[in-house]
Amino acid sequence: MNAVTKMTTMKALVYHGPGKKAFEDHAKPEIADSADAIVKVTKTTICGTDLHILKGDLPSCAPGRILGHEAVGIIESVGPAVTAFKPGDHVLISCVSACGKCEFCRKGMFSHCTTGGWILGNTIDGTQAEFVRIPHADTSLYPIPDGADEEALVMLSDILPTGFECGVLNGKVQPGATVAIVGAGPIGLAALLTAQFYSPGEIIMIDLDDNRLEVARKFGATQTINSSDGQAVPTLMKLTHGRGADTAIEAVGIPATFELCEQIVGAGGIIANIGVHGLPVALHLERLWDRNIAITTRLVDTVSTPMLLKVLRAGRIDPKLLITHRFKLSAILEAYETFANAAKTKALKVILEA
Amino acid sequence: MNAVTKMTTMKALVYHGPGKKAFEDHAKPEIADSADAIVKVTKTTICGTDLHILKGDLPSCAPGRILGHEAVGIIESVGPAVTAFKPGDHVLISCVSACGKCEFCRKGMFSHCTTGGWILGNTIDGTQAEFVRIPHADTSLYPIPDGADEEALVMLSDILPTGFECGVLNGKVQPGATVAIVGAGPIGLAALLTAQFYSPGEIIMIDLDDNRLEVARKFGATQTINSSDGQAVPTLMKLTHGRGADTAIEAVGIPATFELCEQIVGAGGIIANIGVHGLPVALHLERLWDRNIAITTRLVDTVSTPMLLKVLRAGRIDPKLLITHRFKLSAILEAYETFANAAKTKALKVILEA
Amino acid sequence: MNAVTKMTTMKALVYHGPGKKAFEDHAKPEIADSADAIVKVTKTTICGTDLHILKGDLPSCAPGRILGHEAVGIIESVGPAVTAFKPGDHVLISCVSACGKCEFCRKGMFSHCTTGGWILGNTIDGTQAEFVRIPHADTSLYPIPDGADEEALVMLSDILPTGFECGVLNGKVQPGATVAIVGAGPIGLAALLTAQFYSPGEIIMIDLDDNRLEVARKFGATQTINSSDGQAVPTLMKLTHGRGADTAIEAVGIPATFELCEQIVGAGGIIANIGVHGLPVALHLERLWDRNIAITTRLVDTVSTPMLLKVLRAGRIDPKLLITHRFKLSAILEAYETFANAAKTKALKVILEA
Amino acid sequence: MNAVTKMTTMKALVYHGPGKKAFEDHAKPEIADSADAIVKVTKTTICGTDLHILKGDLPSCAPGRILGHEAVGIIESVGPAVTAFKPGDHVLISCVSACGKCEFCRKGMFSHCTTGGWILGNTIDGTQAEFVRIPHADTSLYPIPDGADEEALVMLSDILPTGFECGVLNGKVQPGATVAIVGAGPIGLAALLTAQFYSPGEIIMIDLDDNRLEVARKFGATQTINSSDGQAVPTLMKLTHGRGADTAIEAVGIPATFELCEQIVGAGGIIANIGVHGLPVALHLERLWDRNIAITTRLVDTVSTPMLLKVLRAGRIDPKLLITHRFKLSAILEAYETFANAAKTKALKVILEA
Repeated sequence: MNAVTKMTTMKALVYHGPGKKAFEDHAKPEIADSADAIVKVTKTTICGTDLHILKGDLPSCAPGRILGHEAVGIIESVGPAVTAFKPGDHVLISCVSACGKCEFCRKGMFSHCTTGGWILGNTIDGTQAEFVRIPHADTSLYPIPDGADEEALVMLSDILPTGFECGVLNGKVQPGATVAIVGAGPIGLAALLTAQFYSPGEIIMIDLDDNRLEVARKFGATQTINSSDGQAVPTLMKLTHGRGADTAIEAVGIPATFELCEQIVGAGGIIANIGVHGLPVALHLERLWDRNIAITTRLVDTVSTPMLLKVLRAGRIDPKLLITHRFKLSAILEAYETFANAAKTKALKVILEA
Repeated sequence: MNAVTKMTTMKALVYHGPGKKAFEDHAKPEIADSADAIVKVTKTTICGTDLHILKGDLPSCAPGRILGHEAVGIIESVGPAVTAFKPGDHVLISCVSACGKCEFCRKGMFSHCTTGGWILGNTIDGTQAEFVRIPHADTSLYPIPDGADEEALVMLSDILPTGFECGVLNGKVQPGATVAIVGAGPIGLAALLTAQFYSPGEIIMIDLDDNRLEVARKFGATQTINSSDGQAVPTLMKLTHGRGADTAIEAVGIPATFELCEQIVGAGGIIANIGVHGLPVALHLERLWDRNIAITTRLVDTVSTPMLLKVLRAGRIDPKLLITHRFKLSAILEAYETFANAAKTKALKVILEA
Repeated sequence: MNAVTKMTTMKALVYHGPGKKAFEDHAKPEIADSADAIVKVTKTTICGTDLHILKGDLPSCAPGRILGHEAVGIIESVGPAVTAFKPGDHVLISCVSACGKCEFCRKGMFSHCTTGGWILGNTIDGTQAEFVRIPHADTSLYPIPDGADEEALVMLSDILPTGFECGVLNGKVQPGATVAIVGAGPIGLAALLTAQFYSPGEIIMIDLDDNRLEVARKFGATQTINSSDGQAVPTLMKLTHGRGADTAIEAVGIPATFELCEQIVGAGGIIANIGVHGLPVALHLERLWDRNIAITTRLVDTVSTPMLLKVLRAGRIDPKLLITHRFKLSAILEAYETFANAAKTKALKVILEA
Repeated sequence: MNAVTKMTTMKALVYHGPGKKAFEDHAKPEIADSADAIVKVTKTTICGTDLHILKGDLPSCAPGRILGHEAVGIIESVGPAVTAFKPGDHVLISCVSACGKCEFCRKGMFSHCTTGGWILGNTIDGTQAEFVRIPHADTSLYPIPDGADEEALVMLSDILPTGFECGVLNGKVQPGATVAIVGAGPIGLAALLTAQFYSPGEIIMIDLDDNRLEVARKFGATQTINSSDGQAVPTLMKLTHGRGADTAIEAVGIPATFELCEQIVGAGGIIANIGVHGLPVALHLERLWDRNIAITTRLVDTVSTPMLLKVLRAGRIDPKLLITHRFKLSAILEAYETFANAAKTKALKVILEA
C-alpha cells in the first residue's frame, strides 16, 4: 500500500496564482485518453513564458497548474491508440500538442490544433515535474536519435523551433541578406543561431545589454548595436548603406521594439514577430503603405522539429550554447530565481535534471 | 511660325496647388533622355490619387505639374536608346516607370526603381494631356495587342494591377478560400474582379454604400455587408462559421477599415493592404501575436501587366465593367466633378478621350 | 442464424487473376484496427486503373481482392481510436489512406504513407462492394457537406484530386498561361476542369478521338488538336506563336505522349505527368538541358481534397460533367463493359449505386 | 600611325574549327551598339564548355571566334545608352548577356534573352583576349566591390552561379536535407560549395576519381562514393537508410550519371541537372511515375549574381578553393593543356592574367 502511494504521487512545480508557486507533491498523471502517453521527465527547463504566467499575465493558466512545456524523457505508458511509441522509448516533448487530424493540423498549423496547440503547462499540467501526460502522443512526441545529447534536445522543445519558425522561416532569411534581430535574450539568440542555416550576409543584433550583445557576437552576429543611446535606427541605416534590413526579427514583445522594427526594415523587407505582446503597437502605415513590406506573427507550430533534428544530428548547430546553468529538479525554485534575474546572473537557459 | 506654335504647345490638366487645377495650354513634352518616348495620349482617366494631390496631401507633387498616370496612346517619337518601340506603335502606359537595371527592378520591385517608380503625374508631368513623356520607355510601356479595346486597356495602367498585386497576389487568394474586401470603390472592385482568377469560394464585400455593394454583387461578390450598423465583424464571423477570412483586403486607407481587417482575418490568414494611408493604425498585437497572420503593404510594381494582358486577351476579365462615364479630354474639369462626387454620380472610372 | 449470415456476407466485385472478375458473395469487412471504420457504400465508380489490374499489370493486387478505390457512403462502425467520425456519418472515401503521423504524411505526401497510400482495391479490399473497411479513418475520410450531391462527390475520391494535384498544381497553372493537355480521357478532362481554377489564357487539348475533343471544348478547352495526323507539334507551335506551352500535362501514360510533351513544352515550362507508365521514355536532354524546364511525377496525395470540397460547395466546378452512365451495383459487370469500351460507348465515368 | 595600329589589334585565343585554336593577333573590339561596353580583361579562365567547342560539339560557335565567357576587367569605353557604368569602372562580366527588357529577362530567365543569353565566346567574340565587347552592358556587368579579390570574382562569371542556380536553387536544398552530387569536377564542386549556404545534413559526392573525392571532402562533402565498383546505388541507399537523396545533382552530362540520379533520388525528391548533355537518356517513368519527383534543367540565368556577391563579401564562401593553376594570358595554350588533362594535372579552374 505504501508502495502504491509512492507510485501515485510525484514532485512538481505548481502555480498557485500570481506571484505564487511551490515545488510540492502532486498526483502523478494517468492516461486519460487513448492517444495519451505518460512520460517520465529526464530533463526540463524554464521559459520566459513561465515568468509571464507567474506574473498573472495569462488567465488561461489557472492556479493549481503544473508549469513547463519543454522536456525530454522516457515513455512510461501509452494509451491504446498510440502506435508510434511504446514504453521505454526516449522522446522529445514538443511544446505544442497536435492531433494531426483537424483542419489546422492538416495545413501544418499545429499551434491552432482544435484540441491541442500550446496547452502543456498552460491549460493542462506541464513538464516541470517527474512525470507528464502528453495528449496526441503520436504527433506530439519525437523519437530521440541514439546517442543524442538530452540537454541539446531540450532546446528543441520550444526555443529553437520558435526562433526558427517565427523569426527565420517567417522572415525568409536568404543567403547574403541583412538580418536585424531586436532582442538578444534566449529567443533572439535562438533566432540568431538558426538564421545562420541560410548564410545571411549580415546579422545585426540590437539590445540594451552589453553582456548579451557580447554573447550574440560569439553566437555569430556580425554587428551589434546597443540601443540605449536611442540611436539604433541611424546606426543600422548607416551599417546597411541606407537600405535597412531585409528581415527584422522582433524578439522582445513591447511596442518600442516593434516600432523600432518598423523603422529599420528596408523596402521589400519583412518584420517577423516572435515577441509575446500585451499591448497594441502603432503601425505607421502612413510611412509603410508603399514600402512593399510584410509583417508576420506566429505561435510556433513545431512543424520544423524533424528538420531541426536533422540539422542537429549533422552537427550544423550547437543548441547547448544557450545553456548557462544546470540544477536538479529539486532545486527548481533556485533555478527560477537564477532565470528570473538574468541581467545579474547572465542566465540564458537553465537545465533541470529530474 | 503658327504651325510651329501648334506643334510645341498642347492642352493639359495642370495642378496649381491645393484646390487649384486648370485645363490649359502647356509646352508639349520633348525627349529629355535617350531612353524616353513621347506618347500621343488617346485615352486617359482620373485616379483617386489625383484627388488626394488636389487636396494637397502629396507634397511630392509640386504646383505646375500635369496630373495623370494612366493612359494608352500612340508613340510619336523615341530617344536613341529605345529599342523595343518605334513611332506609330500603339502602347499601354504603366503608372510605374522602371529602368529595368537597378537593384529593385532586378527583383521585380519596379515601384522602388531608383530612377523611376510612381513618378508620372507626381514628380514629372503626367498623362492628362495631349502628349506625355515616358522615361525608361522600353520597360515602362507595353505593346497593345491588335484589335484590343483601348478603354479596357486604360484599366491596366494602374487600377487592375494595383488591385491584383497589392490585394490578390499579396493576399495569396486560393481556390475555395474566403476573401473579404473592405471598400467597394474602384480599387476594391478591381481586387474583386482579379481575385476571381483564383476561384475563391467566397468573396465578401464590405462597404457603407448600398449602391456600391450592389455593383459588387454584379461583379462577382458572393456576399455583401453594409458596415454602417457597426456589425460587420459579427456578421462576417457568422458567414464564415467563426473562422474569419483567409484573405482580408484593405481597400480604403483609414484606421477604421484597417482595424476591421485585423478583426475579421482568420488564424493563418493575410491582411493585404491596398489603401493609401495618411495616419498610423493600432495594430492589436496583443490579440494577433499568436494568430499566424501576415500583413502586407505594396505600391503596385506592375510586374503583372504581361499576365493581365494575357488574361484580358483570353476574355477571362472584363475591365470595362469599371467604366461608368466617358468624356472628351476637353471636358476634363466636368469629368473631375463627376468622379469626385461618386456617391451622387455613382462614378467608378471615367474615360477621357483625347 | 439466417439473419447473422445475412449480416456477415455482402456482394462485391472480386478480382480473380488476369482477365477474371466476378460479382459475388464475399465476407463483410470487420474492424481490424482501432483506427478503422466500416463504411456502407452508397455510390462508387470504376477507374482506368481497375482495368489495368484486370489485365494483370499490377502484381501488387492479388487474386481474391475486391476492387475499387472511389466511393461515398455512410459509416456503419468505427474502431475505438477513431475520434472524428461516428456511425451514421455521411463520408467521402479518399483513394489514398493516410496515417497522418509518418514522415511522409507530415509533409503532405499521403501517397507515400508508410502504412497507407493507395492500398484500397489494391493491397486491401476496395469499394466496389456493399461495405468497405477504411484504415486510418480519421485522416482518410471526409465529412460530406449537408445537401451535397453524392455523384459529384464520388469524383473527389480520386479523379479530380489526381487531375488537380498531378496536373494542375504540379504544372503550376497561372492566370493567362498556356496549358496543353495530352489525353482527353477522364483524367485529362479532370485536369481540364480543375486547370480553370487558375484562369489560364489557353487550354489546348490533344487527343486522337474527335468525340473526346468535342467533349473537351464543352468542358472549357480553348483549342483542340487531333494528333492522328502526326502534326500536333507544329500545330501547337503555330497556336502558341512558337513559344510552346507553359504547362504540358501528360494524361495518357505511354512513351509517345510523354515525348510529345517534351516537344511542346516552352522554355521555362513544366511537364506535369499524370499518366501511369509501364515503359521507360526517351528524355531528350540533348535538346532540353538548357531549356529551363521541370518534369514532375506524382501519385495523388489527396491533400487538396479539403480545397476541392470548398470549390465544389462554392459551385465553381461541376464534376458531374464527367459522369456519362449510371448503373446499380448489381449491374457492375455491365458497367465494366461500358467503361472498358469507351471509344464506342463514349463513357467517361460511370456511377454505381449500391 | 603606329600607335593607332597598336590600339586596334590585340592578342586573343581564336577557335579555328574542330581541334584547332591559336593565340594570335586579332582586331580589337569596338562599340557596335549603343548599349555596348568595351572591357579590358584583367583576369579570365577556361571552362569545360570551351573544350566542347574545340571538339566541334557546338555548331553555334563558328571558326574565327574568340573563346571565353568568364572574366573581370576594367571598362575602357561605353556606348551612349549605357548609364550604369563608365570608363575606368572595375567590373565582373557575366557569362550571360541580358537585355533586361524582353519577355524572358522580365521573368528572370536571362539565359533565354531574345537578344542575349550565352553568346560570349559562342556566337560573338569572348573574353580570352585583351579586350572584349559586352552587349547590354548595364544588365550584363556587375560593379566589383572595393577591395574584392579578382580571382575569386572570376568564379562568379559562370561556375558558381551555374552550380548554385542549376544545382542548388533548382534542387531546393534545405537545412538538414540529404544532397547527392554526381560528378566532382569544377561544376560539381561549385554546387558543393554553394549547397552549404542552406546547411544540408548530408552532402554525398559521387565520382570515379579518388583525388577529386578527396578535394570534395575538403570542400565540405560529408560522404564520398567512388562509383567505379558499380555499387554507388546500394552504397548511397545504405547511407540514407533506404530513403535516397532529397536532392540529386547531375554534374557530368552523360546518360549513365543521369540514370544514376534516377536511382538514388528519394520519393518526393528532385533531380537537378547541371550537365550539358549530347544524348537522350532513358527516363524510367515505369518506376518514377508515382514517386513524386521533379527533374529540372537550366542554362544558368545569373540572376543570383547579386546574391553571390553579397555572400562573397560576407566571407561565407571561398571561391578561390576552385583555383588550382595560374598563367599569364600569353601562356594560354599551356593553360588549355593543363586544364584539358585534369586527371593528370589535378586542375580545377585555371586563372589567366591578362
